[in-house]
Amino acid sequence: MTREGRNRASAQSPAWLEELGIWLSPSLCLPWGVSEDAMIDLTSDAFFMGQALREARKAYAAEEVPIGAVVVRESQVIARAWNQVETLRDATAHAEMLALTAAQNTVEDWRLDGCTIYVTKEPCPMCAGAIVHCRPVRVVYGCPDLKGGAAGGWINLLQANPPLNHQCEVTGGVLEDECVGLLQGFFREARARKGEEGGSQGGNRVRR
Amino acid sequence: MTREGRNRASAQSPAWLEELGIWLSPSLCLPWGVSEDAMIDLTSDAFFMGQALREARKAYAAEEVPIGAVVVRESQVIARAWNQVETLRDATAHAEMLALTAAQNTVEDWRLDGCTIYVTKEPCPMCAGAIVHCRPVRVVYGCPDLKGGAAGGWINLLQANPPLNHQCEVTGGVLEDECVGLLQGFFREARARKGEEGGSQGGNRVRR
Repeated sequence: MTREGRNRASAQSPAWLEELGIWLSPSLCLPWGVSEDAMIDLTSDAFFMGQALREARKAYAAEEVPIGAVVVRESQVIARAWNQVETLRDATAHAEMLALTAAQNTVEDWRLDGCTIYVTKEPCPMCAGAIVHCRPVRVVYGCPDLKGGAAGGWINLLQANPPLNHQCEVTGGVLEDECVGLLQGFFREARARKGEEGGSQGGNRVRR
Repeated sequence: MTREGRNRASAQSPAWLEELGIWLSPSLCLPWGVSEDAMIDLTSDAFFMGQALREARKAYAAEEVPIGAVVVRESQVIARAWNQVETLRDATAHAEMLALTAAQNTVEDWRLDGCTIYVTKEPCPMCAGAIVHCRPVRVVYGCPDLKGGAAGGWINLLQANPPLNHQCEVTGGVLEDECVGLLQGFFREARARKGEEGGSQGGNRVRR
């Protein structure tokens, strides 16, 4: 199933299935029969980005900028995390940073050989720099960040070897619409809240 | 006392005083009297870089690449850390990252307004990105990293506003000789150890 196909499929999946990170094909014809195309691909980029989106929704629920990440090795999620800057009062607590550290705990090594990190938004310079240090083989992100992204949006630290010591494969735009939609909804609500408060107090809560 | 003066002074201070981060002026004339120039400046860049060097020596003792950092606010050290990549099995556990997180714990906020971070080596892209997120007013480093530094050595993320959201004052070269010497000694020993082992096993231990 192509990425485009998965994205189209996603738009037709029931919300509760999407919540589980599962997308159904438009050609699905249950209960009369299931075409080969309707198989749920549990190893696809869309599936794992769905898992990262689940993390992002946890951030949303906690009034954090909704960004989530998972680290995958041999088609298994070995770490998952959501942006917790406000929760932990730590500006470095981006989803990618927490997921990388959790993955390193899982593999008991700082080298994430053979791993892929999925994140709902293009990594910032801090996170891209951290990814290079941890050496996963691949980075997959949802929506690009043309202003400050460091996976090609603004600069590309993930493929700057030399001088950096490692280089990752990069795939962008996986479930982009869902990832963008979640962020847009969050900031729309935050602006509305700020407007209601009639001042700038609420503004500081929304960052990343 | 000028920074140049302090650096000169440093070369003439007894080792045990340097260990405490204290440098004496060359014009010191104890026990017959102390000139005004001999006052120990406990608010100077050299003093705080000495504190960062103390942290770096802890890294050295733990067989970590010897880099240390402290965060200072209102002339007080509010956080200190040394590189612990191997100790914590976490490639993101650079001295700056740990010091920033510790400082945020101290001030109970992710914003390090009014703070200065001192680090013995120019920050890498990950650490420079993290510093920008935490918003200290100033970054002071010891030795430059022309290959991969992100405070002007290779790129300059600390002064890339826009597109990034914050900009720091940057001062490099404070106690540069001491900072370089510590790193050179460490890598010289590591190479010798690797040679003795007759293979590449030891090589993986030396990174950052």
